[in-house]
Amino acid sequence: MNALEKKILTEGKVLEGNILKVDMFLNHQIDVALIQQMGKDFYEHFKHKEITKVVTVEASGISIACFTALHFGVPVVFAKKGRHKNVGSDVFSSQVYSYTKGEAYEVNIRRDFLSASDKVLFIDDFLANGAASKGIMDILHQAGATLQGIGIAIEKGFQEGGALLRDAGIDLYSLAIIDRMEPGKITLREH
Amino acid sequence: MNALEKKILTEGKVLEGNILKVDMFLNHQIDVALIQQMGKDFYEHFKHKEITKVVTVEASGISIACFTALHFGVPVVFAKKGRHKNVGSDVFSSQVYSYTKGEAYEVNIRRDFLSASDKVLFIDDFLANGAASKGIMDILHQAGATLQGIGIAIEKGFQEGGALLRDAGIDLYSLAIIDRMEPGKITLREH
Repeated sequence: MNALEKKILTEGKVLEGNILKVDMFLNHQIDVALIQQMGKDFYEHFKHKEITKVVTVEASGISIACFTALHFGVPVVFAKKGRHKNVGSDVFSSQVYSYTKGEAYEVNIRRDFLSASDKVLFIDDFLANGAASKGIMDILHQAGATLQGIGIAIEKGFQEGGALLRDAGIDLYSLAIIDRMEPGKITLREH
Repeated sequence: MNALEKKILTEGKVLEGNILKVDMFLNHQIDVALIQQMGKDFYEHFKHKEITKVVTVEASGISIACFTALHFGVPVVFAKKGRHKNVGSDVFSSQVYSYTKGEAYEVNIRRDFLSASDKVLFIDDFLANGAASKGIMDILHQAGATLQGIGIAIEKGFQEGGALLRDAGIDLYSLAIIDRMEPGKITLREH
């Protein structure tokens, strides 16, 4: 069991509406030593691949992406979220539908920071339906960049995103996969 | 001259409207080794103070705050930005007026993550008019927490935020202070 899995089981809380509350260590307050360890764990999995950039989405993915990128010696690029169509030709842009919030938002990356020679590791805090991953893959496609893998902190294994990405042949590595959760009980997938 | 100052002089660009463009290493693409060094520099300045939490504002402050907090062995808490009044009594909230965007936004921190026993180092990427600092100080006041210092990556020394905070007796440490800038020329304050 890795550090994140232990933390989820000891401190994670399940709220009504299938919401996993991990904002005490991951996405509001950040346990920096834990995130540092997660960065090492991602590096161990992906270290045999050539990576030129670690891409993530603001805001919760940034810390995890930074501690991962440090090992590869490459920059992080974080996609910015916006509600409005970003006018102009200076950004790659894609729509992401958030099932949690019931609305679409846009992810944008300036064209300056992604090119056809980039080999990208995408890092994010959560994977559920895979909407954010699809948005980033769309942006990478626009840039002509290569997706080398996806590293996820917490995958909701009971939603379809993980299966969709793995079936597409993507090297998807999730530090913790939750198979079932209900108030008071979280069941992690063994690995 | 520290690592950030060198980077600003070699890669920073001044755009029309007094905008300093540093998104190639600080606030869109992140030069992680640089941010790691900045975290060390902040630690060197503030290490003699008792710090229980490093507070920042999403999204650009997060990476700098994490690499600083690592040295203190304390968590990061990042304030979330919102346009809408966050209803309910579970958050500390304050209004921040952005002169760049010409509109106000709200910063929020869950009450769970700040208490009267906290001794806080506030870290942010930019200081201009000091609006974000004032918003965070308002939140710390609501929580009864103590502000131990403010660490800023880039201070616009020709705007009033720095003078206001220093005159108020705050231990404000900026890694780079820009005294003047015009397209093609950036003048840093010597120290």
